[in-house]
Amino acid sequence: MREVAAANAGFYQAFESLDIAEMDEVWAHRDEVKCVHPGWGLLVGWPRVRQSWELIFRSTARMRIELEDVAISGGDATAWVVLTEHVGSDDEGQRTLSPVLATNVFERVDGLWLLVHHHASPAVRMPGPPEPTTVH
Amino acid sequence: MREVAAANAGFYQAFESLDIAEMDEVWAHRDEVKCVHPGWGLLVGWPRVRQSWELIFRSTARMRIELEDVAISGGDATAWVVLTEHVGSDDEGQRTLSPVLATNVFERVDGLWLLVHHHASPAVRMPGPPEPTTVH
Repeated sequence: MREVAAANAGFYQAFESLDIAEMDEVWAHRDEVKCVHPGWGLLVGWPRVRQSWELIFRSTARMRIELEDVAISGGDATAWVVLTEHVGSDDEGQRTLSPVLATNVFERVDGLWLLVHHHASPAVRMPGPPEPTTVH
Repeated sequence: MREVAAANAGFYQAFESLDIAEMDEVWAHRDEVKCVHPGWGLLVGWPRVRQSWELIFRSTARMRIELEDVAISGGDATAWVVLTEHVGSDDEGQRTLSPVLATNVFERVDGLWLLVHHHASPAVRMPGPPEPTTVH
């Protein structure tokens, strides 16, 4: 799982770099890749996913991400990572810091672990239901 | 991937059944299983995940879920499913219908595909950024 940890760290380095060429390196360029940014709809296919990162990078001056509770599971060909991202960005003059829950799925392609799915949603601090109880 | 499709369908049948014994059948009972219900925090470990389903089932009179755009990927040991759930529930007299984006990860254990991770968050209809642009 050390290689998956490195691939996951590489994704967040690319995220912080705000350089689309770095993001190109960490994702599989396939039709079935998927991405959910917090508050966005589902994006399917590398062209759309790549475009979303271009859009985010273009509107962001600076990005720092701290990772918490990185849990890696899976096997030889597919691995999944669950973690909390603490995302600090300078967005058109506004500084925001938001905790985000993320699921990242990696697949090994020709010996390289590449990101195939990123599902991120705003994190809630308490590990229980909101009040009043919201049913799934 | 037919077996994964069946396991995924089995999860939603268990969800609709509101019967914790059915949910027991579809999840791996392991420490690393994880679950994010929409608007909840991350739950880690089968005991906590199971407890969350008990809580949901106890407060729900009826549950109907329709699935849209079920996309299954992965390999022999680990598979990941992305889909939209249309969740209709009767919750203490109130009827709600909400689209939810879900990532489900399954692992094959002794020939059986079991759920090891469920990440669900409210779905946004448009496959683009919200207005005004929110940076990840």
